Amino acid sequence: MSHPGYVHPDSPLLNSCPPTLPRAAYVDPAWYAAEVEHIWKTSWVYVGRKPELPQGTIRPIEVAGQRLILVHDETGAVRAFHNTCRHRGAELCAAETALRGRRITCPYHNWAYDTQGRLISTAFGTPTGDFRKEEHGLFPVHLRDWRGFLYVCLADTPPEFGAESLPGLSALDNWPLETLVSGHRREWDTPCNWKIFWENYNECLHCPGVHPNLSKRVPAFAKGINAPEEAVDWTPDQPSPPSLADGARSWTVNGLACGPEFPDLTEEERLAGANFLTMYPTMYITAHVDSLRVGRIEPLGPDRMRLTIDWLFAPETLAQPDFDLANAVEFTAQVIEEDVWACEVNQRGLTSDRFKAGTLMPQEFEIAHFHDWIRARVPASVTGR
Amino acid sequence: MSHPGYVHPDSPLLNSCPPTLPRAAYVDPAWYAAEVEHIWKTSWVYVGRKPELPQGTIRPIEVAGQRLILVHDETGAVRAFHNTCRHRGAELCAAETALRGRRITCPYHNWAYDTQGRLISTAFGTPTGDFRKEEHGLFPVHLRDWRGFLYVCLADTPPEFGAESLPGLSALDNWPLETLVSGHRREWDTPCNWKIFWENYNECLHCPGVHPNLSKRVPAFAKGINAPEEAVDWTPDQPSPPSLADGARSWTVNGLACGPEFPDLTEEERLAGANFLTMYPTMYITAHVDSLRVGRIEPLGPDRMRLTIDWLFAPETLAQPDFDLANAVEFTAQVIEEDVWACEVNQRGLTSDRFKAGTLMPQEFEIAHFHDWIRARVPASVTGR
Amino acid sequence: MSHPGYVHPDSPLLNSCPPTLPRAAYVDPAWYAAEVEHIWKTSWVYVGRKPELPQGTIRPIEVAGQRLILVHDETGAVRAFHNTCRHRGAELCAAETALRGRRITCPYHNWAYDTQGRLISTAFGTPTGDFRKEEHGLFPVHLRDWRGFLYVCLADTPPEFGAESLPGLSALDNWPLETLVSGHRREWDTPCNWKIFWENYNECLHCPGVHPNLSKRVPAFAKGINAPEEAVDWTPDQPSPPSLADGARSWTVNGLACGPEFPDLTEEERLAGANFLTMYPTMYITAHVDSLRVGRIEPLGPDRMRLTIDWLFAPETLAQPDFDLANAVEFTAQVIEEDVWACEVNQRGLTSDRFKAGTLMPQEFEIAHFHDWIRARVPASVTGR
Repeated sequence: MSHPGYVHPDSPLLNSCPPTLPRAAYVDPAWYAAEVEHIWKTSWVYVGRKPELPQGTIRPIEVAGQRLILVHDETGAVRAFHNTCRHRGAELCAAETALRGRRITCPYHNWAYDTQGRLISTAFGTPTGDFRKEEHGLFPVHLRDWRGFLYVCLADTPPEFGAESLPGLSALDNWPLETLVSGHRREWDTPCNWKIFWENYNECLHCPGVHPNLSKRVPAFAKGINAPEEAVDWTPDQPSPPSLADGARSWTVNGLACGPEFPDLTEEERLAGANFLTMYPTMYITAHVDSLRVGRIEPLGPDRMRLTIDWLFAPETLAQPDFDLANAVEFTAQVIEEDVWACEVNQRGLTSDRFKAGTLMPQEFEIAHFHDWIRARVPASVTGR
Repeated sequence: MSHPGYVHPDSPLLNSCPPTLPRAAYVDPAWYAAEVEHIWKTSWVYVGRKPELPQGTIRPIEVAGQRLILVHDETGAVRAFHNTCRHRGAELCAAETALRGRRITCPYHNWAYDTQGRLISTAFGTPTGDFRKEEHGLFPVHLRDWRGFLYVCLADTPPEFGAESLPGLSALDNWPLETLVSGHRREWDTPCNWKIFWENYNECLHCPGVHPNLSKRVPAFAKGINAPEEAVDWTPDQPSPPSLADGARSWTVNGLACGPEFPDLTEEERLAGANFLTMYPTMYITAHVDSLRVGRIEPLGPDRMRLTIDWLFAPETLAQPDFDLANAVEFTAQVIEEDVWACEVNQRGLTSDRFKAGTLMPQEFEIAHFHDWIRARVPASVTGR
Repeated sequence: MSHPGYVHPDSPLLNSCPPTLPRAAYVDPAWYAAEVEHIWKTSWVYVGRKPELPQGTIRPIEVAGQRLILVHDETGAVRAFHNTCRHRGAELCAAETALRGRRITCPYHNWAYDTQGRLISTAFGTPTGDFRKEEHGLFPVHLRDWRGFLYVCLADTPPEFGAESLPGLSALDNWPLETLVSGHRREWDTPCNWKIFWENYNECLHCPGVHPNLSKRVPAFAKGINAPEEAVDWTPDQPSPPSLADGARSWTVNGLACGPEFPDLTEEERLAGANFLTMYPTMYITAHVDSLRVGRIEPLGPDRMRLTIDWLFAPETLAQPDFDLANAVEFTAQVIEEDVWACEVNQRGLTSDRFKAGTLMPQEFEIAHFHDWIRARVPASVTGR
């Protein structure tokens, strides 16, 4: 496996044209429910950046239809709990707020928990009988801080963290991920199944038609091939080959770096132009010499998802007196607009009940992998296999 | 059983901490459907005040998803029917209107019924064969006028009227209910299950945190106890003990009666400050020396209800030249706003699928009774017991 | 069978008062789904006028929840296909557009099809293995052009065209249907089941109450009878009897023809005032001496439909310098508004679960026929018979 979009069409990666997932995978509420249960409730799900969650803060979030809270306590620890009081189930936190007295206090009857979720007080309630406070703590949720990226997992026994990352967590070792901050955020509530987004992300056959500007910046895209023709021996387990048009350094409007280049990158990483890290099903990072984009995918229904993009920069880049935010973000924002449009077009066409399944081209080998990943997780009772 | 909110914490009413209803009771459409069928379609449901339905009027109403009409005829009788014509099912009445010619006339083909629901005319239709008019009357619905409060019951065989009232219909014998009129009405479409409202209504543990002003007016509330500490021997089958802060007579903004006090109250009823009558599942009355509040509860879905509050007064109170409506209603309107907010908070927190059931405190003995009342009505196939 | 609305009440067409369809037919999602499957997906469905679909055009349409395209090619042929690309199911066409290069080109990856639906190009995709282009053509849909009216049928084997027309396709032989153009269009998104519309269309018992102006133009309607009393021997297999009030020639505001009368009509057709052609379930035509109305019925859910009315005229009528569009359309537009109101009233009343079925009057013999037509198509597993 590899980051997407870079494979020469002569590479023998797919020597057949396999069918896509069936139409039901994109429109059937039962498929969607099975994916929530067997994918979104069992995977590590990206929920935000630790540098943007101040110490002493509670923040409500939602994952796979479950309301949770993130708690960043005064010791620097971040924990996650279900956003529900053990008394009668009231919501603990409706909006980001400061921890008062190092306690998570329910606004309804003032039951109070410490930041580890232990029940400290039932306020005016006077429990009796065999009530034991230690049995009424908040419901904890697994949380992982990976270099400033926060993930939660709703399962009792989470999978190994990073196992689903492509090409591997180390791909971005030379970027100072911990210290980056968001300079811009944009959300798209998109009328498509979340898998449509990943399929679009995983191939560049659509680039010449859908992304005219990006295809000028990355000339291989304009030819309907995804790696320069001279990189004929390149395979996806290798670092990305050089890709940018002459003179360009990044995916900015003017093609130049929007600030100082990250100091520890290799020459190969600089020439690649874009370096990818993907974590199914929840997020991806596209890393350039001067900035990163983080894409967060949230399923909202069989035919709805939310895409949230953060543009991350080094603090010193944002601090430049002449920093030009539009130059830094509008080039890629347009690419995302184009992809969102394509995803909507794809979803609408999938409503035809004559369409049973599509057919993949050899260039879509990453989609074939993604479909296998899905098939391995959704029960046969739903997939009908 | 008793009116809610008044029990000293030392009273041995609950000597354990029983579980609440399961989470499904608040979010599952099957639970909701079972409650509509087995509670709302079989109980007496409050639909309004007779003094506000003029003679010679038809009014469309909705009960448990069924569209009905109330008909107040020229003899003073009020009857209820399904709002559907026996010809081809057209709606008989879309908005409150005057009875024309003592007839209920369908606007579609002009079939006409008398105010007892008997089919009088098929207009231009000329029935033939074995059609018999007496078999095509309106579908009647049981109706009860209790001291000016109108109730309907959709069941073929209604339960005894008043059997579900707490502490009993006679609790308000000394208030002139028949002659009161509404001086103000306010509605809240609230995103919560209807039972959440009743749970909130049935305990005062939330008062110190949620109702700061009410807790000043009723000092026991501010201490997290629900009856004055000196009333340690009081039990719920007794009349309410005195509760108001020094100098206060009612739940108005300035604490004074907003008009002449009702003449027939006992001294005990006056000192109680607030006297309650509850009729599950549909309504409650809170009676003061100078006014009453009627709360009507309507379920609209697993997570939606409507609360309608009428402030009732003696006509002479409203006729006072210097009557101050804001003083009369805004104190309690704020309490209701606070309760509605708490109900929404509770509903949102109940969406967590890790929350199986909560735990009641001894002070929540009325909720325990209410939950037993629910459990006795919802079939085991739904409750899973 | 016959066109609706014209039968003398003494005609022995119904000598009993049969029940209507059960309430479930109008509110139950399972009934609706069965009708979509067994009626709307197997019938010829009207989709528009060929004169209004220019050569070299692709137009997206929707039939029975299926997105389709109509393609009018450079040879004058019109064809229909599912609006879905065989690659990964993208929508081929989102809005009416010109055919480019005689190709239907998918906007996502540029797969291209000829106007017969054959796959011509996979663009940058390089199919391999046993992929054969001739197996990846567009999914065709049966299409019929009847005198300028276009119909599609989603079934593999369509029924005989015109078999469901009343009183028969030849009823409008003397109108120059091919050359007419739409001078006005109006749509009503109506909260009623689509069958409610047809029931309303099929009887005139409601005319005196619902259509006061129409009842002046057609005096028989005002008396609650549907054919002039002197036409007592008329039966529905005969041409319509004369119906208009003295001096009137058409259903315009001023009662006069809004342009030259169609030259080839018989004297009988002119005196009839209105001549009907009905095609279940999808459309009807009301033909006058000077113009026609086409009504298109589209089901949108158990309790929603769309009614689209086109007023068709000869081109020379629209070309008159003093043509008065309001005079030509507002009289009948008001009648339709009145019918739409009645349909909404009927649907609302059918929500009562005490209403099991209504009762037809003898005048409603066409509804009885329509109900039989429905019963013959909806499976017994749904109708419960």
